[in-house]
Amino acid sequence: MQNLMANARIVLVNTSHPGNIGGVARAMKNMGVHNLVLVDPQEFPSGKADARSAGAKDVLQNATIVPTLEQAIEGCGLVVGTSARSRHIPWPLQDPRETAAQALAELPKHPVAFVFGREDRGLTNDELHLCNFHVHIPSHEDFSSLNLAAAVQVIVYELRMALLAAEKGDAPAPMWGTEWDEELATSEQMERLFEHMEETLVDIEFFDPKYPRQLLARLRRLFLRARLDRIEHNILRGMFTATQRTLKKLR
Amino acid sequence: MQNLMANARIVLVNTSHPGNIGGVARAMKNMGVHNLVLVDPQEFPSGKADARSAGAKDVLQNATIVPTLEQAIEGCGLVVGTSARSRHIPWPLQDPRETAAQALAELPKHPVAFVFGREDRGLTNDELHLCNFHVHIPSHEDFSSLNLAAAVQVIVYELRMALLAAEKGDAPAPMWGTEWDEELATSEQMERLFEHMEETLVDIEFFDPKYPRQLLARLRRLFLRARLDRIEHNILRGMFTATQRTLKKLR
Repeated sequence: MQNLMANARIVLVNTSHPGNIGGVARAMKNMGVHNLVLVDPQEFPSGKADARSAGAKDVLQNATIVPTLEQAIEGCGLVVGTSARSRHIPWPLQDPRETAAQALAELPKHPVAFVFGREDRGLTNDELHLCNFHVHIPSHEDFSSLNLAAAVQVIVYELRMALLAAEKGDAPAPMWGTEWDEELATSEQMERLFEHMEETLVDIEFFDPKYPRQLLARLRRLFLRARLDRIEHNILRGMFTATQRTLKKLR
Repeated sequence: MQNLMANARIVLVNTSHPGNIGGVARAMKNMGVHNLVLVDPQEFPSGKADARSAGAKDVLQNATIVPTLEQAIEGCGLVVGTSARSRHIPWPLQDPRETAAQALAELPKHPVAFVFGREDRGLTNDELHLCNFHVHIPSHEDFSSLNLAAAVQVIVYELRMALLAAEKGDAPAPMWGTEWDEELATSEQMERLFEHMEETLVDIEFFDPKYPRQLLARLRRLFLRARLDRIEHNILRGMFTATQRTLKKLR
């Protein structure tokens, strides 16, 4: 399924700073996207681009350079242009998550281009009008212009999140967002743990069964919501045993 | 609702390149986040940071500089550390979207810290063990290390998306599926709890500091992921105090 990304194309129009091209290459490769097309870059190739790419030099070396945006989007079935919010003609405007969902649905069918404008003034209206949709990264109104590589980072991150969600299908998310390496304690183990805990709390004179208040309930809630694995369960049992043994030795 | 973000804190640990600090400040301000805390930065203030911030110089000027991560997270009710996927002890691991949803639910209650490590080797295990949760940006296995400013960009973007969704009325589910009735223990309280726990474990002859293995890390993980409230924290402190007092009486 990863090779879906072979149909994703990042297009940078008339970029001023080669360092930004390197930063874009790194962000792309981090998220598994490799096709970079540069429309009339002001300085490329460049040592500054290589340096900022930090190991994504292959993306730079394989980049295509073309003179116009029309050539950059050739063959694409879907073209999305990044845009500041207000334009004199309103265009279908998505947020990055909507864009990623739509792109993912179309990547099996045809190449999809994500077009990013100049550092200082974005895409021209003519360029924006070559796009099917515009995508707006919802930045704060008072300070809305993202660094070019940061903007690409957001888009390719959303693409990767969409890809990973699709690969997982509807499988439920694992408990902590990751596979735990140990089996969980069983409910019987937990009950014996709570008995042992109560016994120990009496031994250390912290708990008086005549005045239980909410103490045991609160401790149950804590350990049950933490979902103990077997090692953690064993550690707590070990702590209670050690406490009782040490007290016994002294008594 | 924007002022929710006043409780969001971006913490950078031991950053090497001041340009990255500037890039982080820009990404933050773009997404409406302003509190930056620098733990022992290698070069700051710096003209390179100012240049890359591209107008977010106020974030840099208001940044707090502290010598340790413990000081950087003081007062925080939730601490999330960025992490590569595999660690020798798995910690509760979220993706950036899950982290943002959880953070947004908690920002009205207490400061929330997002902790980012060194450019070349991230956070140490000790630093990661100060965190309630870890967040992993799902980068490609073959090229997984994001630029520092790019990583911050992803997290603050997700925070802003969560904020905007909440403003629209898609409020995230509260932390435990219900409103908690007690305030959470602070990170300082948790650290004192862990010190007290270690002392007590030595007293009951369960823990030998000469052979620490993973015992303390596993107990930290358990209590940090359970997110203790103040009463639970007090109960555990009370248990340790009672154990020590009872042993003392007998010795």
